Amino acid sequence: MKKILIIGIGAGNPDYITMQAVNALNEVDVFFVMDKGPAKDKLVALRKEICQRYIRHDRYRIVEATSPERVRDRADYHASIEDLNRDKQQVFERLIGEELADGQCGAFLVWGDPGLYDSTIRIVEAIAATGVHSFDYEVIPGISSIQALAAKHRVPLNRIGKSIEVTTGRKVAAAYPDADSVVVMLDAEDSFRHYVDQDIDIYWGAYVGTPDEILVAGKLRDVADEIRRVRAAAREANGWIMDSYIMRRSDDKA
Amino acid sequence: MKKILIIGIGAGNPDYITMQAVNALNEVDVFFVMDKGPAKDKLVALRKEICQRYIRHDRYRIVEATSPERVRDRADYHASIEDLNRDKQQVFERLIGEELADGQCGAFLVWGDPGLYDSTIRIVEAIAATGVHSFDYEVIPGISSIQALAAKHRVPLNRIGKSIEVTTGRKVAAAYPDADSVVVMLDAEDSFRHYVDQDIDIYWGAYVGTPDEILVAGKLRDVADEIRRVRAAAREANGWIMDSYIMRRSDDKA
Repeated sequence: MKKILIIGIGAGNPDYITMQAVNALNEVDVFFVMDKGPAKDKLVALRKEICQRYIRHDRYRIVEATSPERVRDRADYHASIEDLNRDKQQVFERLIGEELADGQCGAFLVWGDPGLYDSTIRIVEAIAATGVHSFDYEVIPGISSIQALAAKHRVPLNRIGKSIEVTTGRKVAAAYPDADSVVVMLDAEDSFRHYVDQDIDIYWGAYVGTPDEILVAGKLRDVADEIRRVRAAAREANGWIMDSYIMRRSDDKA
Repeated sequence: MKKILIIGIGAGNPDYITMQAVNALNEVDVFFVMDKGPAKDKLVALRKEICQRYIRHDRYRIVEATSPERVRDRADYHASIEDLNRDKQQVFERLIGEELADGQCGAFLVWGDPGLYDSTIRIVEAIAATGVHSFDYEVIPGISSIQALAAKHRVPLNRIGKSIEVTTGRKVAAAYPDADSVVVMLDAEDSFRHYVDQDIDIYWGAYVGTPDEILVAGKLRDVADEIRRVRAAAREANGWIMDSYIMRRSDDKA
Protein backbone atom coordinates (compact mmCIF):
# COMPACT_ATOMS: atom_id res chain seq x y z
CA MET A 1 0.00 0.00 0.00
CA LYS A 2 1.22 3.49 -0.88
CA LYS A 3 0.14 6.69 0.80
CA ILE A 4 -0.45 10.09 -0.76
CA LEU A 5 -0.69 13.26 1.29
CA ILE A 6 -2.20 16.41 -0.20
CA ILE A 7 -0.72 19.03 2.10
CA GLY A 8 -1.93 22.63 2.24
CA ILE A 9 1.12 24.77 3.02
CA GLY A 10 -0.70 28.07 3.33
CA ALA A 11 -0.62 31.02 0.97
CA GLY A 12 2.44 33.23 0.97
CA ASN A 13 4.06 33.25 4.38
CA PRO A 14 5.99 30.02 5.21
CA ASP A 15 4.81 30.54 8.82
CA TYR A 16 1.22 29.93 7.70
CA ILE A 17 2.05 26.22 7.78
CA THR A 18 0.23 24.23 10.47
CA MET A 19 1.74 21.82 12.98
CA GLN A 20 -0.34 19.11 11.32
CA ALA A 21 1.33 19.90 8.00
CA VAL A 22 4.78 19.94 9.62
CA ASN A 23 4.12 16.49 11.11
CA ALA A 24 2.88 15.29 7.73
CA LEU A 25 5.97 16.67 5.91
CA ASN A 26 8.11 14.56 8.21
CA GLU A 27 6.34 11.36 7.09
CA VAL A 28 6.97 11.94 3.40
CA ASP A 29 9.48 9.95 1.32
CA VAL A 30 8.91 11.69 -1.99
CA PHE A 31 7.63 15.19 -2.75
CA PHE A 32 6.11 15.74 -6.18
CA VAL A 33 6.72 19.29 -7.37
CA MET A 34 4.95 20.44 -10.51
CA ASP A 35 4.82 24.17 -10.88
CA LYS A 36 4.57 26.11 -14.07
CA GLY A 37 4.37 29.55 -15.60
CA PRO A 38 6.14 32.75 -14.59
CA ALA A 39 5.70 32.17 -10.84
CA LYS A 40 7.29 28.74 -11.10
CA ASP A 41 10.70 29.63 -9.66
CA LYS A 42 9.23 31.37 -6.63
CA LEU A 43 6.75 28.59 -5.95
CA VAL A 44 9.37 25.85 -6.27
CA ALA A 45 11.72 27.82 -4.02
CA LEU A 46 9.00 28.27 -1.40
CA ARG A 47 8.26 24.53 -1.36
CA LYS A 48 11.96 23.71 -0.98
CA GLU A 49 12.34 26.28 1.77
CA ILE A 50 9.41 24.73 3.64
CA CYS A 51 10.94 21.25 3.33
CA GLN A 52 14.32 22.48 4.53
CA ARG A 53 12.91 24.49 7.39
CA TYR A 54 10.50 21.94 8.82
CA ILE A 55 11.74 18.44 7.98
CA ARG A 56 13.92 16.99 10.71
CA HIS A 57 15.68 14.33 8.59
CA ASP A 58 17.28 14.10 5.13
CA ARG A 59 15.72 10.89 3.88
CA TYR A 60 13.27 12.58 1.52
CA ARG A 61 13.47 13.12 -2.23
CA ILE A 62 12.01 15.89 -4.36
CA VAL A 63 10.83 14.86 -7.81
CA GLU A 64 10.18 17.73 -10.19
CA ALA A 65 7.83 16.96 -13.05
CA THR A 66 6.82 19.12 -15.96
CA SER A 67 3.33 20.38 -15.41
CA PRO A 68 0.94 20.38 -18.36
CA GLU A 69 -0.19 23.88 -19.32
CA ARG A 70 -3.78 24.90 -19.75
CA VAL A 71 -4.72 25.92 -23.26
CA ARG A 72 -5.52 29.61 -22.82
CA ASP A 73 -8.13 31.61 -24.70
CA ARG A 74 -10.50 28.69 -25.03
CA ALA A 75 -14.10 29.77 -24.83
CA ASP A 76 -15.08 26.95 -22.49
CA TYR A 77 -13.11 27.50 -19.29
CA HIS A 78 -14.59 24.44 -17.62
CA ALA A 79 -13.61 22.13 -20.51
CA SER A 80 -10.10 23.57 -20.69
CA ILE A 81 -9.62 22.86 -16.96
CA GLU A 82 -11.00 19.35 -17.40
CA ASP A 83 -8.53 18.71 -20.23
CA LEU A 84 -5.71 20.09 -18.13
CA ASN A 85 -6.69 17.89 -15.21
CA ARG A 86 -6.74 14.81 -17.46
CA ASP A 87 -3.19 15.64 -18.55
CA LYS A 88 -2.15 16.23 -14.95
CA GLN A 89 -3.76 12.95 -13.94
CA GLN A 90 -1.49 11.10 -16.39
CA VAL A 91 1.57 12.80 -14.92
CA PHE A 92 0.43 12.11 -11.33
CA GLU A 93 -0.30 8.46 -12.21
CA ARG A 94 3.18 8.03 -13.62
CA LEU A 95 4.73 9.64 -10.53
CA ILE A 96 2.75 7.43 -8.15
CA GLY A 97 3.56 4.35 -10.24
CA GLU A 98 7.26 4.96 -10.91
CA GLU A 99 8.59 7.14 -8.12
CA LEU A 100 6.89 5.61 -5.09
CA ALA A 101 7.63 2.13 -3.73
CA ASP A 102 5.07 0.09 -1.85
CA GLY A 103 4.83 1.26 1.76
CA GLN A 104 6.17 4.70 0.86
CA CYS A 105 4.50 8.06 1.31
CA GLY A 106 4.32 10.66 -1.46
CA ALA A 107 3.07 14.22 -1.16
CA PHE A 108 1.80 17.12 -3.16
CA LEU A 109 2.36 20.49 -1.50
CA VAL A 110 -0.53 22.76 -2.33
CA TRP A 111 -0.28 26.55 -2.12
CA GLY A 112 -3.03 27.82 0.20
CA ASP A 113 -5.77 25.30 0.97
CA PRO A 114 -6.27 22.18 -1.17
CA GLY A 115 -10.04 22.69 -0.77
CA LEU A 116 -10.18 26.09 -2.49
CA TYR A 117 -9.74 26.45 -6.25
CA ASP A 118 -7.18 23.69 -6.56
CA SER A 119 -7.55 20.45 -8.52
CA THR A 120 -5.16 18.15 -6.66
CA ILE A 121 -7.90 16.44 -4.59
CA ARG A 122 -10.04 15.87 -7.68
CA ILE A 123 -7.11 14.41 -9.64
CA VAL A 124 -5.92 12.11 -6.85
CA GLU A 125 -9.51 10.93 -6.31
CA ALA A 126 -9.82 10.18 -10.04
CA ILE A 127 -6.61 8.13 -9.94
CA ALA A 128 -7.81 6.23 -6.88
CA ALA A 129 -11.09 5.51 -8.69
CA THR A 130 -9.28 3.83 -11.62
CA GLY A 131 -7.96 1.22 -9.19
CA VAL A 132 -4.69 0.90 -11.15
CA HIS A 133 -2.58 1.98 -8.20
CA SER A 134 -3.49 0.88 -4.71
CA PHE A 135 -3.02 3.80 -2.32
CA ASP A 136 -4.68 5.64 0.50
CA TYR A 137 -4.76 9.43 0.58
CA GLU A 138 -5.32 12.20 3.07
CA VAL A 139 -5.93 15.96 2.83
CA ILE A 140 -4.35 18.48 5.19
CA PRO A 141 -5.96 21.92 5.22
CA GLY A 142 -3.93 25.13 4.89
CA ILE A 143 -4.42 28.87 5.36
CA SER A 144 -5.96 30.16 2.13
CA SER A 145 -5.08 33.45 0.46
CA ILE A 146 -8.50 34.88 1.33
CA GLN A 147 -8.00 34.21 5.04
CA ALA A 148 -4.59 35.84 4.84
CA LEU A 149 -6.17 38.78 3.01
CA ALA A 150 -8.89 39.28 5.64
CA ALA A 151 -6.37 38.96 8.48
CA LYS A 152 -4.00 41.52 6.96
CA HIS A 153 -6.84 43.97 6.43
CA ARG A 154 -8.07 43.14 9.97
CA VAL A 155 -11.63 42.59 8.75
CA PRO A 156 -13.91 39.56 9.07
CA LEU A 157 -14.91 37.80 5.85
CA ASN A 158 -18.60 38.08 6.81
CA ARG A 159 -20.85 40.55 8.53
CA ILE A 160 -22.99 39.43 11.49
CA GLY A 161 -25.27 36.54 10.50
CA LYS A 162 -24.75 37.34 6.81
CA SER A 163 -23.48 35.19 3.94
CA ILE A 164 -20.25 35.18 1.93
CA GLU A 165 -19.87 34.23 -1.71
CA VAL A 166 -16.45 33.05 -2.78
CA THR A 167 -16.29 33.30 -6.53
CA THR A 168 -14.22 34.05 -9.62
CA GLY A 169 -13.61 37.25 -11.57
CA ARG A 170 -15.50 35.79 -14.50
CA LYS A 171 -18.68 35.33 -12.46
CA VAL A 172 -18.44 38.71 -10.77
CA ALA A 173 -18.04 40.42 -14.13
CA ALA A 174 -21.24 38.73 -15.31
CA ALA A 175 -23.35 39.76 -12.32
CA TYR A 176 -22.83 41.12 -8.82
CA PRO A 177 -23.55 38.22 -6.43
CA ASP A 178 -26.47 38.31 -3.97
CA ALA A 179 -24.40 37.38 -0.94
CA ASP A 180 -23.60 40.14 1.56
CA SER A 181 -19.80 39.71 1.31
CA VAL A 182 -18.19 38.83 -1.99
CA VAL A 183 -14.73 37.29 -2.08
CA VAL A 184 -13.07 37.16 -5.49
CA MET A 185 -10.21 34.87 -6.45
CA LEU A 186 -8.76 34.24 -9.91
CA ASP A 187 -9.61 37.62 -11.39
CA ALA A 188 -7.39 38.50 -14.33
CA GLU A 189 -9.76 41.20 -15.61
CA ASP A 190 -10.19 43.67 -12.71
CA SER A 191 -13.87 42.72 -12.60
CA PHE A 192 -14.50 45.10 -9.70
CA ARG A 193 -14.34 47.94 -12.22
CA HIS A 194 -17.89 47.11 -13.35
CA TYR A 195 -19.24 48.29 -9.99
CA VAL A 196 -17.43 51.59 -9.36
CA ASP A 197 -20.74 53.47 -9.59
CA GLN A 198 -22.04 51.61 -6.52
CA ASP A 199 -21.41 52.24 -2.83
CA ILE A 200 -19.06 49.33 -2.15
CA ASP A 201 -16.11 48.83 0.21
CA ILE A 202 -13.23 46.83 -1.22
CA TYR A 203 -10.28 45.15 0.52
CA TRP A 204 -7.72 44.10 -2.06
CA GLY A 205 -4.36 42.40 -1.70
CA ALA A 206 -1.63 40.85 -3.83
CA TYR A 207 1.16 38.44 -2.79
CA VAL A 208 -0.38 38.55 0.69
CA GLY A 209 1.92 37.21 3.39
CA THR A 210 5.04 37.54 1.22
CA PRO A 211 7.66 40.32 1.27
CA ASP A 212 6.03 41.67 -1.92
CA GLU A 213 2.62 42.09 -0.23
CA ILE A 214 0.48 45.01 -1.39
CA LEU A 215 -2.77 45.98 0.35
CA VAL A 216 -5.32 48.57 -0.77
CA ALA A 217 -8.69 49.23 0.90
CA GLY A 218 -11.36 51.88 0.67
CA LYS A 219 -14.51 52.89 -1.17
CA LEU A 220 -14.42 51.11 -4.50
CA ARG A 221 -15.06 54.34 -6.41
CA ASP A 222 -12.08 55.97 -4.70
CA VAL A 223 -9.54 53.15 -5.00
CA ALA A 224 -10.51 51.20 -8.14
CA ASP A 225 -8.08 53.12 -10.34
CA GLU A 226 -5.31 52.79 -7.78
CA ILE A 227 -5.82 49.02 -7.57
CA ARG A 228 -5.77 48.67 -11.36
CA ARG A 229 -2.60 50.74 -11.61
CA VAL A 230 -0.80 49.02 -8.73
CA ARG A 231 -1.89 45.58 -9.94
CA ALA A 232 -0.68 46.16 -13.50
CA ALA A 233 2.65 47.53 -12.30
CA ALA A 234 3.19 44.62 -9.90
CA ARG A 235 2.36 42.04 -12.54
CA GLU A 236 4.74 43.75 -14.92
CA ALA A 237 7.52 43.89 -12.31
CA ASN A 238 7.14 40.31 -11.03
CA GLY A 239 5.99 38.60 -14.22
CA TRP A 240 2.98 37.17 -12.36
CA ILE A 241 0.40 38.20 -9.80
CA MET A 242 -1.62 36.38 -7.15
CA ASP A 243 -4.35 38.63 -5.78
CA SER A 244 -7.82 38.50 -4.30
CA TYR A 245 -10.33 40.87 -2.79
CA ILE A 246 -13.41 41.27 -0.61
CA MET A 247 -16.31 43.56 -1.56
CA ARG A 248 -19.26 44.65 0.57
CA ARG A 249 -22.03 47.15 -0.11
CA SER A 250 -21.44 50.06 2.24
CA ASP A 251 -25.10 50.89 2.63
CA ASP A 252 -25.98 47.63 4.38
CA LYS A 253 -25.96 47.46 8.13
CA ALA A 254 -22.69 46.15 9.45
CA MET B 1 1.50 51.39 23.69
CA LYS B 2 -0.22 48.05 24.25
CA LYS B 3 -0.57 45.31 21.71
CA ILE B 4 -3.53 42.99 21.13
CA LEU B 5 -3.25 39.80 19.09
CA ILE B 6 -6.36 38.08 17.79
CA ILE B 7 -5.02 34.59 17.20
CA GLY B 8 -6.88 31.93 15.22
CA ILE B 9 -6.00 28.59 16.80
CA GLY B 10 -7.82 26.39 14.29
CA ALA B 11 -10.98 24.39 14.80
CA GLY B 12 -10.76 21.18 16.79
CA ASN B 13 -7.36 19.63 16.38
CA PRO B 14 -4.60 21.41 18.38
CA ASP B 15 -2.27 20.53 15.46
CA TYR B 16 -4.27 22.87 13.21
CA ILE B 17 -2.34 25.73 14.80
CA THR B 18 0.06 27.54 12.46
CA MET B 19 3.72 28.37 13.05
CA GLN B 20 2.70 32.03 12.86
CA ALA B 21 0.24 31.47 15.71
CA VAL B 22 2.87 29.57 17.73
CA ASN B 23 5.30 32.46 17.31
CA ALA B 24 2.55 34.90 18.30
CA LEU B 25 1.62 32.88 21.41
CA ASN B 26 5.21 33.21 22.56
CA GLU B 27 4.96 37.02 22.45
CA VAL B 28 1.92 37.19 24.69
CA ASP B 29 1.98 38.39 28.31
CA VAL B 30 -1.73 37.96 29.08
CA PHE B 31 -4.31 35.64 27.50
CA PHE B 32 -7.93 36.68 27.83
CA VAL B 33 -10.18 33.63 28.03
CA MET B 34 -13.93 34.17 27.88
CA ASP B 35 -15.86 31.08 26.99
CA LYS B 36 -19.42 30.31 27.92
CA GLY B 37 -22.20 27.78 27.67
CA PRO B 38 -22.06 23.99 27.81
CA ALA B 39 -18.87 23.72 25.70
CA LYS B 40 -17.04 26.12 28.01
CA ASP B 41 -14.97 23.53 29.88
CA LYS B 42 -13.75 21.88 26.69
CA LEU B 43 -12.94 25.18 25.00
CA VAL B 44 -11.07 26.54 28.02
CA ALA B 45 -9.17 23.25 28.34
CA LEU B 46 -8.20 23.36 24.64
CA ARG B 47 -6.86 26.89 24.99
CA LYS B 48 -4.82 25.97 28.05
CA GLU B 49 -3.49 22.86 26.32
CA ILE B 50 -2.39 24.97 23.37
CA CYS B 51 -0.60 27.43 25.66
CA GLN B 52 1.13 24.62 27.54
CA ARG B 53 2.12 22.75 24.42
CA TYR B 54 3.47 25.62 22.35
CA ILE B 55 4.72 28.36 24.69
CA ARG B 56 8.40 28.00 25.49
CA HIS B 57 8.43 30.12 28.69
CA ASP B 58 6.25 30.52 31.79
CA ARG B 59 6.00 34.29 31.97
CA TYR B 60 2.42 34.45 30.69
CA ARG B 61 -0.83 34.85 32.60
CA ILE B 62 -4.29 33.59 31.75
CA VAL B 63 -7.16 35.87 32.78
CA GLU B 64 -10.59 34.26 32.70
CA ALA B 65 -13.50 36.65 32.40
CA THR B 66 -17.18 35.93 32.49
CA SER B 67 -18.57 36.17 29.00
CA PRO B 68 -21.89 37.93 28.50
CA GLU B 69 -24.60 35.60 27.17
CA ARG B 70 -26.71 36.34 24.16
CA VAL B 71 -30.41 36.77 24.88
CA ARG B 72 -31.92 33.78 23.05
CA ASP B 73 -35.27 33.63 21.30
CA ARG B 74 -35.17 37.25 20.25
CA ALA B 75 -36.80 37.77 16.91
CA ASP B 76 -34.03 40.05 15.66
CA TYR B 77 -30.90 37.91 15.53
CA HIS B 78 -28.77 40.77 14.25
CA ALA B 79 -29.82 43.09 17.10
CA SER B 80 -29.27 40.41 19.72
CA ILE B 81 -25.72 39.87 18.44
CA GLU B 82 -25.11 43.62 18.41
CA ASP B 83 -26.26 43.84 22.04
CA LEU B 84 -24.07 40.90 22.95
CA ASN B 85 -21.08 42.50 21.23
CA ARG B 86 -21.65 45.76 23.11
CA ASP B 87 -21.60 43.81 26.38
CA LYS B 88 -18.49 41.96 25.28
CA GLN B 89 -16.88 45.23 24.29
CA GLN B 90 -17.26 46.50 27.86
CA VAL B 91 -15.63 43.35 29.22
CA PHE B 92 -12.79 43.54 26.64
CA GLU B 93 -12.25 47.24 27.42
CA ARG B 94 -11.95 46.49 31.10
CA LEU B 95 -9.49 43.66 30.43
CA ILE B 96 -7.32 45.82 28.17
CA GLY B 97 -7.45 48.67 30.68
CA GLU B 98 -6.88 46.76 33.90
CA GLU B 99 -5.00 43.60 33.04
CA LEU B 100 -2.48 44.89 30.52
CA ALA B 101 0.39 47.25 31.34
CA ASP B 102 1.86 49.63 28.81
CA GLY B 103 4.26 47.80 26.49
CA GLN B 104 2.57 44.47 27.16
CA CYS B 105 0.89 42.14 24.71
CA GLY B 106 -2.56 40.64 25.28
CA ALA B 107 -4.26 38.01 23.19
CA PHE B 108 -7.63 36.53 22.40
CA LEU B 109 -7.47 32.94 21.17
CA VAL B 110 -10.19 32.39 18.62
CA TRP B 111 -11.50 28.92 17.76
CA GLY B 112 -11.17 28.39 13.99
CA ASP B 113 -10.49 31.56 11.98
CA PRO B 114 -11.13 35.03 13.45
CA GLY B 115 -12.42 36.07 9.99
CA LEU B 116 -15.33 33.62 9.89
CA TYR B 117 -18.42 34.09 12.03
CA ASP B 118 -16.56 35.46 15.01
CA SER B 119 -16.96 38.91 16.53
CA THR B 120 -13.55 39.45 18.13
CA ILE B 121 -12.14 41.56 15.27
CA ARG B 122 -15.26 43.76 15.20
CA ILE B 123 -15.18 44.29 18.97
CA VAL B 124 -11.46 45.09 19.14
CA GLU B 125 -11.85 47.48 16.21
CA ALA B 126 -14.73 49.22 18.03
CA ILE B 127 -12.58 49.62 21.15
CA ALA B 128 -9.70 51.01 19.10
CA ALA B 129 -12.11 53.47 17.47
CA THR B 130 -13.15 54.91 20.88
CA GLY B 131 -9.54 55.99 21.43
CA VAL B 132 -9.82 55.42 25.21
CA HIS B 133 -7.05 52.84 25.18
CA SER B 134 -4.05 53.29 22.97
CA PHE B 135 -3.12 49.97 21.41
CA ASP B 136 -2.18 48.32 18.13
CA TYR B 137 -3.76 45.04 17.05
CA GLU B 138 -3.05 42.24 14.65
CA VAL B 139 -5.06 39.29 13.30
CA ILE B 140 -3.59 35.82 12.77
CA PRO B 141 -5.61 33.49 10.55
CA GLY B 142 -6.47 29.93 11.60
CA ILE B 143 -7.85 26.77 10.00
CA SER B 144 -11.65 27.12 10.02
CA SER B 145 -14.09 24.31 10.74
CA ILE B 146 -15.24 24.28 7.11
CA GLN B 147 -11.71 23.71 5.84
CA ALA B 148 -11.29 20.90 8.35
CA LEU B 149 -14.63 19.48 7.22
CA ALA B 150 -13.69 19.52 3.52
CA ALA B 151 -10.26 18.01 4.25
CA LYS B 152 -11.72 15.18 6.33
CA HIS B 153 -14.25 14.38 3.61
CA ARG B 154 -11.43 14.71 1.04
CA VAL B 155 -13.54 17.01 -1.16
CA PRO B 156 -12.84 20.53 -2.42
CA LEU B 157 -15.13 23.30 -1.20
CA ASN B 158 -15.81 24.38 -4.79
CA ARG B 159 -16.29 22.74 -8.16
CA ILE B 160 -14.17 23.86 -11.12
CA GLY B 161 -14.61 27.59 -11.77
CA LYS B 162 -17.81 27.62 -9.67
CA SER B 163 -18.79 29.68 -6.64
CA ILE B 164 -19.26 28.84 -2.96
CA GLU B 165 -21.72 30.44 -0.60
CA VAL B 166 -20.84 30.28 3.08
CA THR B 167 -23.98 30.95 5.03
CA THR B 168 -26.07 30.21 8.12
CA GLY B 169 -28.81 27.66 8.80
CA ARG B 170 -31.33 30.49 9.04
CA LYS B 171 -30.61 31.70 5.53
CA VAL B 172 -30.55 28.24 3.99
CA ALA B 173 -33.90 27.44 5.59
CA ALA B 174 -35.37 30.57 3.97
CA ALA B 175 -34.12 29.80 0.45
CA TYR B 176 -31.60 27.51 -1.22
CA PRO B 177 -28.66 29.73 -2.26
CA ASP B 178 -27.76 30.26 -5.92
CA ALA B 179 -24.09 29.41 -5.52
CA ASP B 180 -22.90 26.03 -6.81
CA SER B 181 -21.52 24.87 -3.44
CA VAL B 182 -23.26 25.80 -0.23
CA VAL B 183 -21.40 25.70 3.07
CA VAL B 184 -23.54 25.98 6.18
CA MET B 185 -22.31 27.02 9.62
CA LEU B 186 -24.37 27.82 12.72
CA ASP B 187 -27.34 25.62 11.89
CA ALA B 188 -29.32 24.66 14.98
CA GLU B 189 -32.37 23.65 12.97
CA ASP B 190 -31.19 20.94 10.54
CA SER B 191 -32.07 23.29 7.68
CA PHE B 192 -30.89 20.74 5.09
CA ARG B 193 -34.14 18.87 5.78
CA HIS B 194 -36.04 21.37 3.61
CA TYR B 195 -34.27 20.05 0.52
CA VAL B 196 -34.47 16.26 0.86
CA ASP B 197 -36.67 16.07 -2.23
CA GLN B 198 -33.83 17.45 -4.39
CA ASP B 199 -30.83 15.71 -5.87
CA ILE B 200 -28.15 17.08 -3.54
CA ASP B 201 -24.90 15.64 -2.14
CA ILE B 202 -24.16 16.52 1.47
CA TYR B 203 -20.92 16.31 3.44
CA TRP B 204 -21.65 16.80 7.13
CA GLY B 205 -19.39 16.75 10.17
CA ALA B 206 -19.46 17.50 13.88
CA TYR B 207 -16.56 18.16 16.28
CA VAL B 208 -14.29 17.82 13.22
CA GLY B 209 -10.65 17.34 14.11
CA THR B 210 -11.41 16.28 17.70
CA PRO B 211 -11.56 12.74 19.12
CA ASP B 212 -15.38 13.06 19.04
CA GLU B 213 -15.44 13.72 15.28
CA ILE B 214 -18.44 12.37 13.35
CA LEU B 215 -18.63 12.45 9.53
CA VAL B 216 -21.59 11.56 7.34
CA ALA B 217 -21.74 12.00 3.54
CA GLY B 218 -24.06 10.86 0.78
CA LYS B 219 -27.16 11.79 -1.15
CA LEU B 220 -29.13 14.17 1.05
CA ARG B 221 -32.30 12.11 0.65
CA ASP B 222 -30.47 9.00 1.85
CA VAL B 223 -28.58 10.46 4.81
CA ALA B 224 -30.72 13.36 6.07
CA ASP B 225 -32.45 11.21 8.71
CA GLU B 226 -29.17 9.68 9.80
CA ILE B 227 -27.57 13.14 10.23
CA ARG B 228 -30.56 14.38 12.26
CA ARG B 229 -30.45 11.29 14.49
CA VAL B 230 -26.67 11.31 14.95
CA ARG B 231 -26.64 15.06 15.53
CA ALA B 232 -29.36 14.97 18.17
CA ALA B 233 -27.72 12.05 19.98
CA ALA B 234 -24.29 13.73 19.95
CA ARG B 235 -25.68 17.01 21.25
CA GLU B 236 -27.50 15.13 23.99
CA ALA B 237 -24.38 13.15 24.93
CA ASN B 238 -21.94 16.09 24.88
CA GLY B 239 -24.26 18.90 25.98
CA TRP B 240 -23.25 20.93 22.90
CA ILE B 241 -22.52 20.49 19.23
CA MET B 242 -20.32 22.23 16.69
CA ASP B 243 -21.16 21.07 13.18
CA SER B 244 -21.17 22.29 9.59
CA TYR B 245 -21.87 20.91 6.16
CA ILE B 246 -21.37 21.31 2.41
CA MET B 247 -24.21 20.78 -0.09
CA ARG B 248 -24.00 20.53 -3.89
CA ARG B 249 -26.64 19.70 -6.45
CA SER B 250 -25.71 16.33 -7.91
CA ASP B 251 -27.11 17.06 -11.34
CA ASP B 252 -24.66 19.85 -12.09
CA LYS B 253 -21.48 19.12 -13.97
CA ALA B 254 -18.59 18.53 -11.57
